[in-house]
Amino acid sequence: MSAQTITAAIYRGDKSFTVETVPAQAPGPSEVAVRTAFCGICGTDMHVYHGNMDARVGFERVIGHEMSGVIEALGDGVEGIAPGQKVVVRPLDHCGECPACAAGHQHICHKLKFLGLDTNGAMQEIWVVPAHTIHALPDDMRLDHAALIEPVAVACHDVRMSGLQAGEDVVVIGGGPIGVLVAMVARAAGGKVLLSEVNPNRLAIAEKLGFETINPAQADLQAEVNARTGSKGADVVFEVSGSQPGVDAMTAVAATRARIVMVAIHAAKPQIDMFQFFWRELKLIGARVYEPEDYDKAIEIVASGGVDAETFITDVAPLSDIQAAFESLDRSPTAMKSLIKVGDL
Amino acid sequence: MSAQTITAAIYRGDKSFTVETVPAQAPGPSEVAVRTAFCGICGTDMHVYHGNMDARVGFERVIGHEMSGVIEALGDGVEGIAPGQKVVVRPLDHCGECPACAAGHQHICHKLKFLGLDTNGAMQEIWVVPAHTIHALPDDMRLDHAALIEPVAVACHDVRMSGLQAGEDVVVIGGGPIGVLVAMVARAAGGKVLLSEVNPNRLAIAEKLGFETINPAQADLQAEVNARTGSKGADVVFEVSGSQPGVDAMTAVAATRARIVMVAIHAAKPQIDMFQFFWRELKLIGARVYEPEDYDKAIEIVASGGVDAETFITDVAPLSDIQAAFESLDRSPTAMKSLIKVGDL
Ligand SMILES: [Zn+2]
Ligand SMILES: [Zn+2]
Ligand SMILES: [Zn+2]
Ligand SMILES: [Zn+2]
Repeated sequence: MSAQTITAAIYRGDKSFTVETVPAQAPGPSEVAVRTAFCGICGTDMHVYHGNMDARVGFERVIGHEMSGVIEALGDGVEGIAPGQKVVVRPLDHCGECPACAAGHQHICHKLKFLGLDTNGAMQEIWVVPAHTIHALPDDMRLDHAALIEPVAVACHDVRMSGLQAGEDVVVIGGGPIGVLVAMVARAAGGKVLLSEVNPNRLAIAEKLGFETINPAQADLQAEVNARTGSKGADVVFEVSGSQPGVDAMTAVAATRARIVMVAIHAAKPQIDMFQFFWRELKLIGARVYEPEDYDKAIEIVASGGVDAETFITDVAPLSDIQAAFESLDRSPTAMKSLIKVGDL
Repeated sequence: MSAQTITAAIYRGDKSFTVETVPAQAPGPSEVAVRTAFCGICGTDMHVYHGNMDARVGFERVIGHEMSGVIEALGDGVEGIAPGQKVVVRPLDHCGECPACAAGHQHICHKLKFLGLDTNGAMQEIWVVPAHTIHALPDDMRLDHAALIEPVAVACHDVRMSGLQAGEDVVVIGGGPIGVLVAMVARAAGGKVLLSEVNPNRLAIAEKLGFETINPAQADLQAEVNARTGSKGADVVFEVSGSQPGVDAMTAVAATRARIVMVAIHAAKPQIDMFQFFWRELKLIGARVYEPEDYDKAIEIVASGGVDAETFITDVAPLSDIQAAFESLDRSPTAMKSLIKVGDL
């Protein structure tokens, strides 16, 4: 395979990608080569595009991690999977030695490498990854839909960490792509979901997906939740907005002993109503990426049609058009998920 | 009993109590009359003394809830207990109808009455309370030690909510009376406890009680915790300081997936490092008062000598001296727990 060449998109800084022909890498021991079918554009990828992660990714990086593909070749010592198998990659590589790894929390390893940021990613025709990151897919799964498995796995992790039970009242604060997927997974788990979002375009998509919504800039979210729950409040709250109003709302709508899952990344330190945590014995649960069982669950949900992939995937562009795809997504008020079609599988 | 008179201390506002002779109340249906032996002065009682709770308690209130005593008389329909029995009172009365009560969380009832604040309390010779608040004590328990059961039950609740396992690394932030009791209960549960406190007098008492301590104003708490835990961090953190530096420390010392218990009452909204909650999948757990099983546990701990009552109880004064006792406690830099000896039992 050493003489083979492939097409790869390389982030070059300053909102620009080059699409180049490069030598294909061969899988080393305990690695596999995957032929990429589709790769979604993540919010993190948009951060890279905007130059916010230059120090971490540099200017020779192939990004991309929300992918689907087919096994191309196996490195030495890899068993239990064969070329031709449809797969997704769980893009986390852990050190195996830190206190988090020792405690069994490899997904939040102190030295975690995120594939597609700290290493090259899936925006190339052949992607070489550690074999332990591979999850096999059902043969009949559509590979465009399978590119949603990574963000759905994020939502599965969030919902699992919440301990959501069927019939519980759920408020999702923030209706971007992750918020909508959290709402979908919470609904699939039997939650009675209310989605709170201020952007009218996002509200329209959430309603198209069948969610009950509220715009907290126009209506009183706390009063609405109280009216729906007999003044009990929400049993489970997902804070996905990353905003101070979202953080204010998360304690305001919470029932006694509610579980609040912190999905958003708050770069600044928000002010939190600690008195409510004490008074109502609230629980706040931080949730980051996913564990293998969340991938298993996400595959099951996507395979069974539990995510409305046709509505959620709003754009598909070929790898040669990656530059235009990022520019378009950056401008779009209505896009949910844009996919890059990397290879023709 | 209607003609009987008793001595009671009444809060009259403006840092003052009167000690008066008043008619003894008779227990109504499902109530019991308890002859009070000792009653500890709580931090909440000091708030009353300072006038911070006048709107809630008024100026005709007998306060006090950290008590021990003996059953004096039973109202109609009370069974399973007899006059002469040593008891303590769990000073919570719930509505039975709100969403919290319906969910089984009576101790955080939306309309919770706290006996000794919202009703008259134990700073009187005979206290009439609902029978469901009574916990029987072993016959050989010292009644002065038994007055510690209420604050120990707070600590038992905090530790139970943390899910502490034997051998885990614990940091208690704040070494006042509640912090020290939390540290004692955490140690009794097998935790490896480090107590962080800035007040040298409190540090001296904590050391006398056998705790490893650190003054975070003089040493780097995070570095110390990392050094003790191989850079893992603390598995369980109790924030008892109610301060912004305490809240900053609680996330700084936490291990991945650590549980942080919010014991303190933060009247203002502190700034919280939400990024660390996400990054390390931390859990924050609000904890308020206690449930019946926490009282059972506290009785067991006090009965078995798990609390060093002799060191912890720093003053005992008769009910006639309640005014001086509050004044003295208010000035004292070294006091841990002051008891009022209400009756001679
Ligand atoms: Zn992503
Ligand atoms: Zn690790
Ligand atoms: Zn108290
Ligand atoms: Zn109630």
